[in-house]
Amino acid sequence: MSNQGIWFSDLSRLVNPNSIVLVGASEKPDSIGGRTLENLTTFSEFKGELLLVNPGRTEIHGRPCVASVKDLKEAPDLAILAVRADMVIQTLRDCGEMGIKFAIVFTSGFGETGEDGRAVEAEMREIVASTGMRIYGPNCPGLNNMNARLGLTFSPAWRIDRRPGPIGVATQGGGLGRSFIQAMDRGVGVGLWCSGGNEVDLEVSDYIHYMADAPDIEVIVTTLEGVRNGPRFMAAALHAARRGKPIVAIKVGKSEYGAKAAQSHTAAIAGSAEINSAVFSQLGIIEVDDIDELIDVASLLARRKPTGKEQLAVYSFSGGTAALASDMVGLAGLKLSEFAPHTIEALRNALPGFAAFTNPVDVTAEVLVNTEVSYATLKATAADPNTDLVLVPIPVEYGKTTAMLADSMVRVQQEETNTPIVPVWMSDRTGEGHRKMIDGGLMPMRAVGNAVLAVQRFIEYGRWKAKFEREWRPLADVSDAEATANLSEAKTKALLEQAGVPTPRGVVARSPAEAAQAFRNVGNGKAVMKIVSAAITHKTDIGGVRLGIASEGAAMAAYEEIHANGVKACDASQIEGVLVEPMLPSPFVEAVVGIHRDPVFGHVCTFGLGGVSIELFKDVSRRLLPLTPASAREMITETRCYELLKGYRGQPAFDIDALVDMLVKLSDFVGKHAARIEELEINPLAVRPQGQGVAALDAVLSYQGTEPSTW
Amino acid sequence: MSNQGIWFSDLSRLVNPNSIVLVGASEKPDSIGGRTLENLTTFSEFKGELLLVNPGRTEIHGRPCVASVKDLKEAPDLAILAVRADMVIQTLRDCGEMGIKFAIVFTSGFGETGEDGRAVEAEMREIVASTGMRIYGPNCPGLNNMNARLGLTFSPAWRIDRRPGPIGVATQGGGLGRSFIQAMDRGVGVGLWCSGGNEVDLEVSDYIHYMADAPDIEVIVTTLEGVRNGPRFMAAALHAARRGKPIVAIKVGKSEYGAKAAQSHTAAIAGSAEINSAVFSQLGIIEVDDIDELIDVASLLARRKPTGKEQLAVYSFSGGTAALASDMVGLAGLKLSEFAPHTIEALRNALPGFAAFTNPVDVTAEVLVNTEVSYATLKATAADPNTDLVLVPIPVEYGKTTAMLADSMVRVQQEETNTPIVPVWMSDRTGEGHRKMIDGGLMPMRAVGNAVLAVQRFIEYGRWKAKFEREWRPLADVSDAEATANLSEAKTKALLEQAGVPTPRGVVARSPAEAAQAFRNVGNGKAVMKIVSAAITHKTDIGGVRLGIASEGAAMAAYEEIHANGVKACDASQIEGVLVEPMLPSPFVEAVVGIHRDPVFGHVCTFGLGGVSIELFKDVSRRLLPLTPASAREMITETRCYELLKGYRGQPAFDIDALVDMLVKLSDFVGKHAARIEELEINPLAVRPQGQGVAALDAVLSYQGTEPSTW
Repeated sequence: MSNQGIWFSDLSRLVNPNSIVLVGASEKPDSIGGRTLENLTTFSEFKGELLLVNPGRTEIHGRPCVASVKDLKEAPDLAILAVRADMVIQTLRDCGEMGIKFAIVFTSGFGETGEDGRAVEAEMREIVASTGMRIYGPNCPGLNNMNARLGLTFSPAWRIDRRPGPIGVATQGGGLGRSFIQAMDRGVGVGLWCSGGNEVDLEVSDYIHYMADAPDIEVIVTTLEGVRNGPRFMAAALHAARRGKPIVAIKVGKSEYGAKAAQSHTAAIAGSAEINSAVFSQLGIIEVDDIDELIDVASLLARRKPTGKEQLAVYSFSGGTAALASDMVGLAGLKLSEFAPHTIEALRNALPGFAAFTNPVDVTAEVLVNTEVSYATLKATAADPNTDLVLVPIPVEYGKTTAMLADSMVRVQQEETNTPIVPVWMSDRTGEGHRKMIDGGLMPMRAVGNAVLAVQRFIEYGRWKAKFEREWRPLADVSDAEATANLSEAKTKALLEQAGVPTPRGVVARSPAEAAQAFRNVGNGKAVMKIVSAAITHKTDIGGVRLGIASEGAAMAAYEEIHANGVKACDASQIEGVLVEPMLPSPFVEAVVGIHRDPVFGHVCTFGLGGVSIELFKDVSRRLLPLTPASAREMITETRCYELLKGYRGQPAFDIDALVDMLVKLSDFVGKHAARIEELEINPLAVRPQGQGVAALDAVLSYQGTEPSTW
Repeated sequence: MSNQGIWFSDLSRLVNPNSIVLVGASEKPDSIGGRTLENLTTFSEFKGELLLVNPGRTEIHGRPCVASVKDLKEAPDLAILAVRADMVIQTLRDCGEMGIKFAIVFTSGFGETGEDGRAVEAEMREIVASTGMRIYGPNCPGLNNMNARLGLTFSPAWRIDRRPGPIGVATQGGGLGRSFIQAMDRGVGVGLWCSGGNEVDLEVSDYIHYMADAPDIEVIVTTLEGVRNGPRFMAAALHAARRGKPIVAIKVGKSEYGAKAAQSHTAAIAGSAEINSAVFSQLGIIEVDDIDELIDVASLLARRKPTGKEQLAVYSFSGGTAALASDMVGLAGLKLSEFAPHTIEALRNALPGFAAFTNPVDVTAEVLVNTEVSYATLKATAADPNTDLVLVPIPVEYGKTTAMLADSMVRVQQEETNTPIVPVWMSDRTGEGHRKMIDGGLMPMRAVGNAVLAVQRFIEYGRWKAKFEREWRPLADVSDAEATANLSEAKTKALLEQAGVPTPRGVVARSPAEAAQAFRNVGNGKAVMKIVSAAITHKTDIGGVRLGIASEGAAMAAYEEIHANGVKACDASQIEGVLVEPMLPSPFVEAVVGIHRDPVFGHVCTFGLGGVSIELFKDVSRRLLPLTPASAREMITETRCYELLKGYRGQPAFDIDALVDMLVKLSDFVGKHAARIEELEINPLAVRPQGQGVAALDAVLSYQGTEPSTW
């Protein structure tokens, strides 16, 4: 499957239906149908037509009610199913057949209960395929459209959680979503919450795609237990990126425990956490680890879009707190702004001698009791031309003092500056000041570490955006793995040469005499000799490699030896010969480049320094194919390998340009044969001094289907 | 300075004085003196004698008042100074001279304001030295003894923050301390808070030492901007460790910003963050990064002392939340318990089919509305014999549901089990359930990540405790750095041999003929030749090293060449000759061992894998001297080097026992000459296959004072 042919339904009539039928409507206030009806009427501002279905009623609360969906005169946009599990399939069929566009199914008792439930879900998908109706659910709390004040949900919480806002939330399970929604109490506004439960049809990717186009949504938040369809997910994420809407995501399943628990919860496959994180990072998806982090980052993005160049000021009335916050800013690799002279002057004028006028600003607690001082100093700090964000860590609830500080912050933010003022309410004790910050729209965070982490991610997103290649699309070839075969080193190298990837020019000798001849061709230098056989993967381990061959005699002896070792390891007929290559002169850096097909996202390239660096330190960078010159260069700079390549401690600089060129060519080659290439690894890849290029010293290809010679 | 001769005053009469004089007492409710008086009388339960001094009063609120400390008939235990800065020195002198044991100085305007203030602080120290009176402060909020209900402070917050408890808090700045104290609102009880401000005399170490002995304190919390006196701090920390009282610490100054801000705030020197963290970890001090982390870890330790073997259960009513929490448990390297069959049986009996009976437990939201079910399932989970701690992440405030859950939790904890039940109240919305958890003593944490991190640190402390070597004391030789000199490789190696550290047995040749002779002594193998000169530190860079010398002729040629390169780099008289050593046969692992004197804590040993691992990945472990066999072995296992040493991917195992032995001998050697050795580095140290020992291939020593030959 490739990214051609991915499309998304327009979900406008699901999110903002003109007409709704509630199947299973009830007058009982504690029933699912009754609560949903109340949410749709008393607690929504729905202007469209609301139809009710219940076989046992002709009217409910004065509204007409029909016995079956089939009794409706016209197909409404949306059906909401609040019916028993055993009635769901028939109702869905009726809805689909009469031309209803969308169905929300609250009912649980399907895929999450086991094999039988999964069979029913397959029937649901069949209804989607045959009627074109799209299904949201089952086993879900419904859909909350706060911005339209429309609660397509049975949850009694809808009555409380209706504060509108610019954040769209797309979740799988409902608990984490609701946890995010309750951040409304911190002033965080959510405009739309889609929580699709078992996702038999519509899934998180669809909601993200919709939110990317929705004019009332500016930031997208998602919680994932697994990515069901990698190419669709990537397409939705890129759509959001092109629309300039950041996605903040939490993905469960990074550890074995989490993967197991997530799978048992929503039956989603967790996939590889490393690959997942690499893909998120490449697509500009801001990955976080916890719900409070999700809230912090989203709330910041709802206030401002970052450029990636932000510099911070820290403003506090406690010296220790200022030091703590500055310390964390530094540890996170962020920059404290250097105040302009007029900022320092303004602070100096407002503050006594023992306060700190530079960044971090410590106005001291004594000073803060004067509201004019806090206003003037906050204003000066926020207005500083080098400052893009003001962090205000507040260690304690101090009654009137913190309330006055809150007043000043809100006033400065509303009247004086667009520079975000971000309070951190560190204490477990809250009070008037905290309340005022929330009411003033400042969405206080809960710990200095949280705030700094949020700002760091905010700025990183800005940097990503600045270098985002808008036209890039992932290869996304996720064909099922069939039986694969390995190609010998010599044949793989021949393919690489064709693809424009340099290798040492070697010859496969089939006798000692041919080895001697091949050695002569090498010229004056030394040679390397290696067994050639697709059946032998660890050549060194079986004695199939000799380095530093310096004479024809040595080449002939090495041939005998290597061949003899080879026939001990596999059948003689599987040995193609012995590869004789010139031995590359020092210095060079040994890197590793691997491309493999990830089952969720398609081909991913991995780059790193060879030897113990990869083995012991897992110091690698990853990118989805295709690579571009810019992304290939980034991959290199993201690893410690870059330290060596650019010339470490008096060593020469190595040929990074050639490395970039080679990575792109390799990516193009794999892209051309994506359906057939499972894995291709060059290890080691020698990166030679500047101007001397690179050389694939060893390589192995794993492929599907026909022999590469026929490609 | 060594750890001999470190002693701590008994602070009992500071913390629990029998008699107090308040100098600067006032009837004005808003003055420092007035607020302090009110705190001592109306808001304290002080049974001792309270005397007042104010030159302008004869009585205040009906209490007699004298004009000067000198007018007191007897010296009270404690003087509290609420006087102007210009009166502090005279008052302190009067107090000291009349035999008062302790003085608390609130007044600010000293060291924190600059040079003049520091001069006055020197006078204060002089008073301490000449009178024996100990000073707490200046520039501090005073001392809060909640357990005795005694507020030796001017802070109006004392009236609110008096909830007693088992946690002792020792801080430098007051803001972060107060932030911690307000965690009382989460049910965290603090029994004593010492916040010594500028610390002219008494310092954090003194309060830690006191708390280690105080029967009402079980956990010690500290915030540090700098460690003023390393040996004293270590002695206090070890005293607490021997008393079984954990210390949880936050240390500002890990980044340049933080170090600068901390220094400008309390004039404390930050020191090296890496060394600091290594020392904390070795002493069992639990280092955290933020105030909320401090609260979480301390609150957990206040409930239970860990063994290091704890296994966790996760209990939730949201599947996604259970998955998220399990994921974090896994990522932190913690263990989910495997439930005993009877636990699973009990859960199965109480729950419907679609819930999760194994760990993590997902009781589902529907179930939770039944209080008997939540009680029964929580009880079964907490009573599970393999479970040592139950984490209950609560994603949302759900009104009655969460209130009922809280009831069940509190009831199970109080009536049924000692296994800590740790709730995580994830939502920004709080309510009845949250309140009930606090009132029930469960001290809810605020985010899953926070809770898992706290549990991780809790368990790590348990592991540390299990292996704590009670009799160990640090070398703590922090003599001031004088001029240092370097010793040549050959001389350093001779010293190492004396110390029992093997080196290749080399000979220093002083002519080509001697080099040939030396080569013959090497035997059949190859030789290494290196320039010998204390003036040349980078031998390779100047062409002073030749490897793989295989004949006498080559040895003579190499001598000429190396010597010629040497005289280009330094004066010929500085060249001692050329070292001829046998070249060590492969395989061996190249490690690096360095010992250097840290100015705060004394000699620290650093161990790691050589080459790029140290250079690029900073993968090292550190220990204060002296090393013991156990700590030396730990150092090795803490680095990735251990992966190679124990036999990586078919490689042989290397001689770890010999490495341990060598590290201890090196430590003993440095310990013996601690005052003279500034730095000693062995790089590389070859660790040979099991049974073949280790060999210092290169080494350099930097020393003070006389030549080591005279030691």
